Amino acid sequence: MDSFKNIRALVIGAGGGIGQALVEQLAGTANVERLFAASRRNPAGDGDRFSCLALDLEEEDSIARAAASCRDQGGVNLVIVATGLLHQGSRLQPEKSWRALDPEQLMRSFAVNTIGPALVAKHFLPLLPRGERGVFAALSARVGSISDNRLGGWHGYRASKAALNMMIRNLAIELARRNPSALCIGLHPGTVDTPLSSPFQGNVPPGKLFSPGRAARQLLTVIDQATAENNGQLLAWDGQVITP
Amino acid sequence: MDSFKNIRALVIGAGGGIGQALVEQLAGTANVERLFAASRRNPAGDGDRFSCLALDLEEEDSIARAAASCRDQGGVNLVIVATGLLHQGSRLQPEKSWRALDPEQLMRSFAVNTIGPALVAKHFLPLLPRGERGVFAALSARVGSISDNRLGGWHGYRASKAALNMMIRNLAIELARRNPSALCIGLHPGTVDTPLSSPFQGNVPPGKLFSPGRAARQLLTVIDQATAENNGQLLAWDGQVITP
Repeated sequence: MDSFKNIRALVIGAGGGIGQALVEQLAGTANVERLFAASRRNPAGDGDRFSCLALDLEEEDSIARAAASCRDQGGVNLVIVATGLLHQGSRLQPEKSWRALDPEQLMRSFAVNTIGPALVAKHFLPLLPRGERGVFAALSARVGSISDNRLGGWHGYRASKAALNMMIRNLAIELARRNPSALCIGLHPGTVDTPLSSPFQGNVPPGKLFSPGRAARQLLTVIDQATAENNGQLLAWDGQVITP
Repeated sequence: MDSFKNIRALVIGAGGGIGQALVEQLAGTANVERLFAASRRNPAGDGDRFSCLALDLEEEDSIARAAASCRDQGGVNLVIVATGLLHQGSRLQPEKSWRALDPEQLMRSFAVNTIGPALVAKHFLPLLPRGERGVFAALSARVGSISDNRLGGWHGYRASKAALNMMIRNLAIELARRNPSALCIGLHPGTVDTPLSSPFQGNVPPGKLFSPGRAARQLLTVIDQATAENNGQLLAWDGQVITP
């Protein structure tokens, strides 16, 4: 992570497959001087340069409290939102047809995949330091690209990720005005072997189902290499720009 | 509307500025044999070839009832969703900054601008006849284009229209499989002199603030000229394709 001098990183969704791997990867990175791991359930175990935070994307107060806590502990210059909702047992399944469209399930997709990351941005973008590199990155997905959509289906997931991609573009425009040294980007991790993708791994080509550790390394490389030109864009695990 | 033989049209949001103008325009169109006007408040006045329906985008049951009523009265081959929420007095104002992001307001934008039209599609797309022209069109907006976004702001409106544009693309893909003679498109009406745009008309270039009547005529021309190539696309008032 050479593009940063000293990293003060926060991973939100540290209990998830990719989030946990990002925390582990960052914990082993030389220039990480402070690491915050946030998850919904109040996690245990603070350490010398490691703090756990309770943060629920659907409770703005908890986001505000986590931001205040980070600020009081020296601030952050890298924020990664590593959350995402695709299915949830029998309560939420990705739609195979318009017949499955359900207002409650759609609301939940927007709440977790779009509104939650936007509220995190509201409270954490102001913490990115001025005059030095700062990155706000949120996990999005290629299936949130409208122009890339050939297959259809997964209406709520696709629409909520398209909405997230718009939020990221919008936040990036505002960020460029307020703090030109900082970036706001979306990340497409590829298909990662986590509970989110496990029911849908059948059609993944050989070598394209990433372990969480590999995905985390790839995403941190993309973050490290992102430039001002990428502000507001959705970047794939290999650094390629995904058109909206 | 020469691309249709006989038109059985439904306008949803018939109480709004553009919706009302669409109803008036369609009422004066020669090959319209049946016209349904749906709005939230139970409207009065059925006529010979004119029916009013109660439909609340936030109540799926009311959408299902309206669909059943249309079906029982001979069906529809043109459905226009002419609704949209940008502001609502002090309860909802378009955000000028990330500081204004509010989870309740964002939820409401997604409920009305994205989920409502998707639920209308769920219940009305199956009514479009097979083997003859059928069009499902929903009012979207150019500000819902991510690639076109230069200014930022209006986070909830932009994100909910980007999500609607994804829904339209997704529904169009499914529609092409089930009923290849039918189309699903998004429409950008331009800036129309209605209560929705009235607080924001200051920067509209001369000649580009359309009366509702002119907007309705332009949109019906776009619908009339749309081809299979346009299925899933967002079309502007002048027929131009807007990239996502």
